[in-house]
Amino acid sequence: MSALTSSDFELPHWRRVAIVGVGLIGGSIALALRKRGLAQQVVGIGRRAAALEAAKAAGTLDEVTTDLATGVAGADLVVVCAPVGHIAPLVEELAPHCPHALITDAGSTKAELVARLARSLPKSARFVGGHPLAGGEKSGAHWANADLFVDRKTIVTPAPGTAPQDVRLTSDLWRSVGAQVLEMSPEVHDRLLASSSHLPHLVAAALSAATPADALALVARGWLDTTRIAAGDPALWQEIFAANRANTLAALTAFEDLLAAFRRALETKNDANLTELLAMGQRNRERKS
Amino acid sequence: MSALTSSDFELPHWRRVAIVGVGLIGGSIALALRKRGLAQQVVGIGRRAAALEAAKAAGTLDEVTTDLATGVAGADLVVVCAPVGHIAPLVEELAPHCPHALITDAGSTKAELVARLARSLPKSARFVGGHPLAGGEKSGAHWANADLFVDRKTIVTPAPGTAPQDVRLTSDLWRSVGAQVLEMSPEVHDRLLASSSHLPHLVAAALSAATPADALALVARGWLDTTRIAAGDPALWQEIFAANRANTLAALTAFEDLLAAFRRALETKNDANLTELLAMGQRNRERKS
Repeated sequence: MSALTSSDFELPHWRRVAIVGVGLIGGSIALALRKRGLAQQVVGIGRRAAALEAAKAAGTLDEVTTDLATGVAGADLVVVCAPVGHIAPLVEELAPHCPHALITDAGSTKAELVARLARSLPKSARFVGGHPLAGGEKSGAHWANADLFVDRKTIVTPAPGTAPQDVRLTSDLWRSVGAQVLEMSPEVHDRLLASSSHLPHLVAAALSAATPADALALVARGWLDTTRIAAGDPALWQEIFAANRANTLAALTAFEDLLAAFRRALETKNDANLTELLAMGQRNRERKS
Repeated sequence: MSALTSSDFELPHWRRVAIVGVGLIGGSIALALRKRGLAQQVVGIGRRAAALEAAKAAGTLDEVTTDLATGVAGADLVVVCAPVGHIAPLVEELAPHCPHALITDAGSTKAELVARLARSLPKSARFVGGHPLAGGEKSGAHWANADLFVDRKTIVTPAPGTAPQDVRLTSDLWRSVGAQVLEMSPEVHDRLLASSSHLPHLVAAALSAATPADALALVARGWLDTTRIAAGDPALWQEIFAANRANTLAALTAFEDLLAAFRRALETKNDANLTELLAMGQRNRERKS
């Protein structure tokens, strides 16, 4: 558990929180707020009534609706947990129905989204982008858990025009459910995540796809670890890549350069160089273990 | 636990088993045989007396020595668990001291080794190559466990001249400690393992090495999974790549082709193609989950 008693941030209390998209992330935010007594009421908004009712029955949500306008009416906090490509249209649609609410999201890319909303929303709208580094290849509200964000990083990405108190409130929201919060511009976020998250997904998918059927029969823990995230939803990841194309390509170029160095060392039988390249990989990996 | 009561293989009993190299694999073979009562005596042979004495004190071994000739004398089974580049010289050195023993190994590459020993050992020598798909980035006898091989695959790689009863005995050895045994030629083994194991290691190392320091601060589970095996010992892995160079380069070419397809889809904004590439990766991954 994070230090909820810490005095270095405000513990925000919400009257009515609207979660748009109740999957793993949305469901976990709902549970995290309810468990900690940080929201009087949490309403879940989605497209599938049956899934919403199941989440309500499981105690994840107080109230559910498939109607966006009804769901966000009266909310003081709206968290949009939809696939990356759907976030901006949803925020634009819901904002007029909750003109005083703080609106944030949990999308994996930020620059395109934040720039678009800075243009499309009224000046008075209070949108602040966010990205919790949690989740994984599992999806759906039945995987939701109240401690999903504990000790995980969440990045908050203010735009130049964002009110400082709204940035603070968004950061405090994530801290209140246990996350370690980092604030950075949407552009820096997207550049760093291209290397730390989007390229690894692309590489895992390419490695998995490149494995011939006869070799697939012999894979062991190494291949299984290296390709684990390739099990993620292709449609969701396509949207992430599309929204962070240039940065992903730049990160891919850096990776291709390393691969080419490995190829040269193998082709020229330069064993000392090959060992040094492997040691570079080992050093970075061991900094994180 | 594997079906030790199964009647489809002989449960071999050994008088004296010599384990050359008592790390994770060698220590686990020793424990696995002792726990199942399959060996009267297990002797560990290594370079560091203190480590050997510690393994003996921990109950992994009956007897230890740093002298190869003494250790293998009188053995009916010798298992060489040394780094890939050291196996052939060790087998050549020890074989004259146990002319009647079945000799096998646990190395990650097979073709070069098996071909060399077919030339260098006397015709009467009984060497059969083996490769348990177990282990990981952890090394050392203190990680050893008697069930390391249970339900893991082990590949046994007879040469054209290997006596069928020795192939059978080697396969039964691995089955007796719980492994699923596959028999294939050393050449097929090396081609398949290049794709299922050696390329994934190279890719994980390159991805880890390519991650800039500022992005390293933001890595989450995806990067950690994808790069996990990059923590492996660079010197050990250099020997594996050196012993399986051509196959690794061929597997690398197949991977580079997939990467290039991802790049093209990103550059040309061909989202349908990108989704299909991601789905190819997902399909292969889900066949193994």
